[in-house]
Amino acid sequence: MKAVIIGAGNVATHLSLALQKTSVSIIQIYSRSEKGVCALANRLGADRTTRIHEISLEADLYLFAVKDDALQEVIPQIPANKGLWVHTAGSVPMDIFKGYVGRYGVVYPLQTFSKDRDIDLRTAPFFIEACLPDDERLLVEFAGKLSSNVQILSSEKRKYLHLSAVFACNFSNHMYAIACKLLEEQRIPPDVLLPLIDETAAKIHALAPQKAQTGPAVRYDLNVLSLQMELLTDPVMKEIYQLISKNIYKEARL
Amino acid sequence: MKAVIIGAGNVATHLSLALQKTSVSIIQIYSRSEKGVCALANRLGADRTTRIHEISLEADLYLFAVKDDALQEVIPQIPANKGLWVHTAGSVPMDIFKGYVGRYGVVYPLQTFSKDRDIDLRTAPFFIEACLPDDERLLVEFAGKLSSNVQILSSEKRKYLHLSAVFACNFSNHMYAIACKLLEEQRIPPDVLLPLIDETAAKIHALAPQKAQTGPAVRYDLNVLSLQMELLTDPVMKEIYQLISKNIYKEARL
Repeated sequence: MKAVIIGAGNVATHLSLALQKTSVSIIQIYSRSEKGVCALANRLGADRTTRIHEISLEADLYLFAVKDDALQEVIPQIPANKGLWVHTAGSVPMDIFKGYVGRYGVVYPLQTFSKDRDIDLRTAPFFIEACLPDDERLLVEFAGKLSSNVQILSSEKRKYLHLSAVFACNFSNHMYAIACKLLEEQRIPPDVLLPLIDETAAKIHALAPQKAQTGPAVRYDLNVLSLQMELLTDPVMKEIYQLISKNIYKEARL
Repeated sequence: MKAVIIGAGNVATHLSLALQKTSVSIIQIYSRSEKGVCALANRLGADRTTRIHEISLEADLYLFAVKDDALQEVIPQIPANKGLWVHTAGSVPMDIFKGYVGRYGVVYPLQTFSKDRDIDLRTAPFFIEACLPDDERLLVEFAGKLSSNVQILSSEKRKYLHLSAVFACNFSNHMYAIACKLLEEQRIPPDVLLPLIDETAAKIHALAPQKAQTGPAVRYDLNVLSLQMELLTDPVMKEIYQLISKNIYKEARL
């Protein structure tokens, strides 16, 4: 299977590096950004271009790993070809390709990708969708080269999956960020939090998070809640503290 | 060293079980609750009482592991003795003991304790405070039997540490809970989130959470943000979504 990668950001990089270890051959990388495309193409030893009309017509698969709002711009400019076009975006419906190509689909890896951080994609669930049954089978096979957990999911459900990932990953990371900021202000090294953060994540492998909830809000310990509100000087942090505490308490009593 | 444990909840249970593997001998467990004290005393093979005036006078250490707001009630009722009294609460100043006993302090394990979940305390940081230098040394030695990471921290700083732990643990767990709820509503098994949650926690061992931030809010992807806002029907979840997204965006631009 020959693939063209469209994009050279975090998702494109991590997927390409993982694909390189499979039987898929990456024949070209395209990105608007000269710097980005060079860096990735050099790492992969693949051809590259920054000119969209030079994208190869020979690939079996065109993997779009660009920002969600760039998809709309890029898709209409890709030269017509017979390949299967897939994007990797959680919130974008498969039908964004409709009218531009006959064979299209989605390969959504549920994982967080950062530059300079290697990840093991084998454990990440991949969610597949395709407009044709043959292409669905093809994508299941393709994703199966990267991950041991491949599932089929509609665009409609994928929207909710992505929203849920925003809470589970982006928002929990922001809670870590606030926690670290509070410690830095007190000149306490933030790495003291790591064993707690690890255990909080590990715990929900065994207990549903609703059952794993601990702390002053779920106990409704008003003394601690009001004391902690007073410690927060940033008005947005105060609001976050109050809103989440209230919701923890409410959910625990449902 | 002989210890009396005051309390039979999660913290008391986990600390007692860990202490049992050390040279500390637990001579008695006290709790108001007959059921709680029986369960724990039986597991430990220790004496027990539900009558506060029957608390042994013979211990070297009295470890108060009761709810924060119960401390105030319990302390004045403990029979006078020569032991060292310590509590385990993040938000309660050491001076809560002042006037009731001459030797007192704090042993605060920074970890989340749930019933039915074994944890390895060796990696949990323990924060120590004592009113007398000799007792500080004693507590460092005591906590060192449980953990390989023992530090000295004042009551004033500990308040902030506890607040920070609320964000890092309780609030991130609530983000997991919301994420699971959203998936359950769509009949998607919530365990698809586990690799993402694990990686989000693992990532900040190498990258500061401010740098590890991903997702639509930090990219300021207005399309996705407004689409996701529409998917949320619960007004509190909507408010949480908006408030945290705004703060992620704000912090990224500082």
